[in-house]
Amino acid sequence: MIKPYLKQAVAVAAVLLALLAPAPAQAQRQATWIWYPGDYEIWLGNQMQNRRTERGTFFPVFWRMDSHYVLIDFHKDFDLAQPEEVELRAEGQYNVKLDGKPLTGAPMRLTVPAGKHRLNIKVYNQATPPTVFVRGKTIASDNSWLVTYEDKEWIDASGKTSDQSGTTWLQAGAWNFDSPEARPAAFKLPTEARRAVRVEPTPTGLVADFGRETFGYIKLYGLRGKGQVAVYFGESKEEALATETCETLEYLAVDQPQPGDRVTSLSKAFRYVNIRPEAGVSLDSVSLLYEYAPVAERGKFRSSDAQLNKIWDVAAYTMHLNTREFFIDGIKRDRWVWSGDAYQSYLMNYYLYFDTPTVNRTQFALRGKDPVTSHINTIMDYSFYWFISVYDAYQYTGDRAQVQQLYPRMQSLMQYVLGRRNPSGLLEGQAGDWVFIDWADGLSKKGEVSFEQLLFCRSLETMALCANLVGDTAGAANYQKLAADLKTKIFATYWSPDKHALVHSQINGQPTDNVTRYANMFSIFFNYFTPSQAQEVKNSVLLNKEVPKITTPYMRFYELEALCAMGEQPYVLKEMKAYWGGMLDLGATSFWEEYDPAKKGAEHYAMYGRPFGKSLCHAWGASPIYLLGKYYLGVQPLTPGYATYEIVPNLGGLQWMEGAVPTPQGDITVAASLKQAQR
Amino acid sequence: MIKPYLKQAVAVAAVLLALLAPAPAQAQRQATWIWYPGDYEIWLGNQMQNRRTERGTFFPVFWRMDSHYVLIDFHKDFDLAQPEEVELRAEGQYNVKLDGKPLTGAPMRLTVPAGKHRLNIKVYNQATPPTVFVRGKTIASDNSWLVTYEDKEWIDASGKTSDQSGTTWLQAGAWNFDSPEARPAAFKLPTEARRAVRVEPTPTGLVADFGRETFGYIKLYGLRGKGQVAVYFGESKEEALATETCETLEYLAVDQPQPGDRVTSLSKAFRYVNIRPEAGVSLDSVSLLYEYAPVAERGKFRSSDAQLNKIWDVAAYTMHLNTREFFIDGIKRDRWVWSGDAYQSYLMNYYLYFDTPTVNRTQFALRGKDPVTSHINTIMDYSFYWFISVYDAYQYTGDRAQVQQLYPRMQSLMQYVLGRRNPSGLLEGQAGDWVFIDWADGLSKKGEVSFEQLLFCRSLETMALCANLVGDTAGAANYQKLAADLKTKIFATYWSPDKHALVHSQINGQPTDNVTRYANMFSIFFNYFTPSQAQEVKNSVLLNKEVPKITTPYMRFYELEALCAMGEQPYVLKEMKAYWGGMLDLGATSFWEEYDPAKKGAEHYAMYGRPFGKSLCHAWGASPIYLLGKYYLGVQPLTPGYATYEIVPNLGGLQWMEGAVPTPQGDITVAASLKQAQR
Repeated sequence: MIKPYLKQAVAVAAVLLALLAPAPAQAQRQATWIWYPGDYEIWLGNQMQNRRTERGTFFPVFWRMDSHYVLIDFHKDFDLAQPEEVELRAEGQYNVKLDGKPLTGAPMRLTVPAGKHRLNIKVYNQATPPTVFVRGKTIASDNSWLVTYEDKEWIDASGKTSDQSGTTWLQAGAWNFDSPEARPAAFKLPTEARRAVRVEPTPTGLVADFGRETFGYIKLYGLRGKGQVAVYFGESKEEALATETCETLEYLAVDQPQPGDRVTSLSKAFRYVNIRPEAGVSLDSVSLLYEYAPVAERGKFRSSDAQLNKIWDVAAYTMHLNTREFFIDGIKRDRWVWSGDAYQSYLMNYYLYFDTPTVNRTQFALRGKDPVTSHINTIMDYSFYWFISVYDAYQYTGDRAQVQQLYPRMQSLMQYVLGRRNPSGLLEGQAGDWVFIDWADGLSKKGEVSFEQLLFCRSLETMALCANLVGDTAGAANYQKLAADLKTKIFATYWSPDKHALVHSQINGQPTDNVTRYANMFSIFFNYFTPSQAQEVKNSVLLNKEVPKITTPYMRFYELEALCAMGEQPYVLKEMKAYWGGMLDLGATSFWEEYDPAKKGAEHYAMYGRPFGKSLCHAWGASPIYLLGKYYLGVQPLTPGYATYEIVPNLGGLQWMEGAVPTPQGDITVAASLKQAQR
Repeated sequence: MIKPYLKQAVAVAAVLLALLAPAPAQAQRQATWIWYPGDYEIWLGNQMQNRRTERGTFFPVFWRMDSHYVLIDFHKDFDLAQPEEVELRAEGQYNVKLDGKPLTGAPMRLTVPAGKHRLNIKVYNQATPPTVFVRGKTIASDNSWLVTYEDKEWIDASGKTSDQSGTTWLQAGAWNFDSPEARPAAFKLPTEARRAVRVEPTPTGLVADFGRETFGYIKLYGLRGKGQVAVYFGESKEEALATETCETLEYLAVDQPQPGDRVTSLSKAFRYVNIRPEAGVSLDSVSLLYEYAPVAERGKFRSSDAQLNKIWDVAAYTMHLNTREFFIDGIKRDRWVWSGDAYQSYLMNYYLYFDTPTVNRTQFALRGKDPVTSHINTIMDYSFYWFISVYDAYQYTGDRAQVQQLYPRMQSLMQYVLGRRNPSGLLEGQAGDWVFIDWADGLSKKGEVSFEQLLFCRSLETMALCANLVGDTAGAANYQKLAADLKTKIFATYWSPDKHALVHSQINGQPTDNVTRYANMFSIFFNYFTPSQAQEVKNSVLLNKEVPKITTPYMRFYELEALCAMGEQPYVLKEMKAYWGGMLDLGATSFWEEYDPAKKGAEHYAMYGRPFGKSLCHAWGASPIYLLGKYYLGVQPLTPGYATYEIVPNLGGLQWMEGAVPTPQGDITVAASLKQAQR
């Protein structure tokens, strides 16, 4: 979607597309557990997000948590050459109908006769999503099955079923639960035992150091005695030792006349644990059950700059830790699915794992269900990132089905947004709207903020693209017109020829004098500026030290992207080395929620008014993965699913680089060097 | 709401209002478990309705089942003279905040200091509704607490909580779970052991007769051996013996080297059970665990006519059996909450139990949640009964809070209905709309049916009344205008001066010639006719044997109500004796779903193409309770909650009658006789 403004001349030594073996076209269908699209995702999101605790106290989200539909009908029509025996499982109470006639009881096997037949399974489950698994020789549950939460099949006094149901059937949702035993509700991320790098005794117990930021359960060995064991977690050693202010902890009640082992109840983020048994309780040792998402790292990057390589490695590790059941914000504190954070993870994912199920799952979990009663995560900007992510995903993956499934929920969310425009047709924060933009001191959220209008405009353009994709031509025309009108209004309102920039906001009908980076940098890679406007903005805003600096990796992502999009790779390389390298110099083993080089020592750990409030492993800290893959290796799709793509390497001052970028058809490997055929 | 057209002169011997002791005004608050309004009701409705089975196979509803919100914030502000210790329970994972600051862990006790304080409890529960119970000296959880599913309390980078939340707070829902042990999710109807009236051995086991229609679990005593015991249930003996076609059954797998007792897993409706142990299994005896709703019968009726007294008694028993967690349709087959059926139960309830919680619960369970994607129970008429029931309930109970809680869901359901009008502004069945009206052979549902428009019009009037009640004056004006315009259109379209009646429907813009009873009888007690139109309709429709007869007690309810409203009590008395007396003559011990005197023997048990498909205990069979209370004892509220009321007894041909009608302030007892002061 984004074209570089400049293409630096480099010698490209090798461009190699390693094609994966294509899936056999007419193979037997793989049976998999299926559900109503979005329902498993919403339910799993609830499970995961409700694991947040703050010093042992449950800390839930402040927006509406939706739930799965409790009663679902699954069906598919078959035309069988031979009768077929089918095995069947469901999570929930269920019945089975063959050609509309119920079978006795809740069968786990049935025979479907030869010929045309319809198989219906209807499942009720209040606690976990209704799901089914069906497997025969040719019959297999998968996302070609149709599902609904209201079949509307009433029966008249003669026993006849209604034949004009008006039911909306969607394609089933699925993931990778491909055996009858792999029940979706029982899903857990895998764990692996890991030893501490160092264990130090303390006057009250011991402190274990796992060598770098990590995540999982603590296992205590040889516990004996009666009393409590306190486990204090720390992303820093300071935090683990600060028993009164560390962010997370767990108390275990021990009653072990004979020595025994115990595992903490919730997986946690930490590098250090401080174990303090009460008097009368003792233990032998500790280890970690490292919990992780089994995603494969397909993206690669190596260059002539060792620090940059380290940055890429730590970014990839940061990304891996934050890729869990969903793309989450950070592993220590929230562990929630935040749309703005997830948006960046999607983009990084396209250059690291290309794990489309995690993207799809996260999009469903974020959106939840109708009716819309607030912005996603209550944040206005976060609704917009969600819209934009849908077409982005299509551009990278070519997965049109996901757009189709989400489109009705896109429409209703956009309906909500459109209903909140003020009389000028612009958006300003109403009661209940969090205008976030970024964590930045003194950043004004008042009035009509240009950044929000810009994201709104891009979202309308996205709606138009997706409407066309699903065949809603009237919708497409409408959204296109709304977008065009809004873009005109944005430039009429906020563009200041004097300041050579979009100003930050309009208050009481008057544009302010305030220039910030946000709207200006997004307009670059949204291609909203004329070439001359873009050049003006680059100098007057992006490279202007008078404009307030960005201190979060979150917005540095877009700032550096804008500069890359204008061919400033050499400048961005220096910035990356200074900013991410700065964290490494402070001993970071994963990248942070926020980094201000002006701070000292343990000041770096504070945020939200708490000494260890800051997350030291935040997904949005991993953006070098994206920047290096897209703007240095220079790989991106030109048409959906990489049907066509471009490779425009840009060394940006490096002597050489090589790497790989995953695509649906396989990995693109790129090597470039200043010297012809050096490697 | 309904005024009798004629008041027959009778000697009223005694009219006595027994006032209940009023609740102490400033008593200590009763702590009770609370929840988000409607959520427990929806969840309990799912539990109950999913107990339907057909010959052992799970038989769920065909409309959308909603679910509770899984994450709820409860709060209340207190101003305490003294510090107060409070005990606290929650169903679910929870946290507690005092003045916005979280307490450690999940406390079961806390002390609230003297002064002004806010207590928040936030509960997550996926499987059952989040609920809380809080009890101190003056602090008590009750429906004065406020609840929301989205508090929107975000925290900025400094740790400050947002102060412009835009959250909608509703009053908590509650029932009668008044102790910490009475957990709402554990609620079950009570049971009582009952013996069979007669047990007969059969070649294959035994048949037990419980003497009359009943409901509950079967307990088998002294089971021994290994194998299966089949339990076939029958509302008739024929059904219990018809092992291949009885509607409900249960198979118990027995493996008892030593004799033991067993209870069936689901409560069922029956009079007879046919117990068939396999060879190798035997048992000693059976009994019933009768399951019932503990509602008190406050309405009473006795008269000079013994058959009528029997009818009232059997109607009251029928009503009791069908009053369970909710007002259900019938106890054998559906056991579902159907809006049209429930509507009649509400009205009967006002003359029998005056149990407002069951009315409120049923209204919430029926309505479910937004977004509206179909009519209630998929039936167009059933949406309308739901609207009308809300103001009716207010008229009888004076419970304005229930209207307030339901009003947003009334608005969204009406929005849905209004969105389905055709270009003429009328409603006709679209795909997915079940136009039910009544079970009647050959009844046309095509085009714009007058009956549906009539209910639609009454619903709009109800919306206007409720809008005024909750202070939505703009809404009230809008609904009032829509209602007035629709009423004009109804009479312009359907009133036929030639036929002296409203015709049944309009098809392709042409009113049909077809005259049915439905719209005509409802127009009587809706007071939509002029007095002369009403007289015309009485003769040309209600008393005209050429117009197709009604064969369900369901519509007989309204037919007889219309005649009573026109002072035809003597005629209605004969009809009641013939129709309900006819069922008694056939041995009915509860009243049926449908009764056609022309049928013979076991023909009466058939329906829906199945030999025992008919329900022999259907709530809508109990209407004499309502008719006798309202139109013979003649008691009804004139203003909400019986603030004022009328007592207009009408003996309708009886020598004498006496009875009681419950009201919020106590029972009104009425005695009337043809002879002055006879009793």
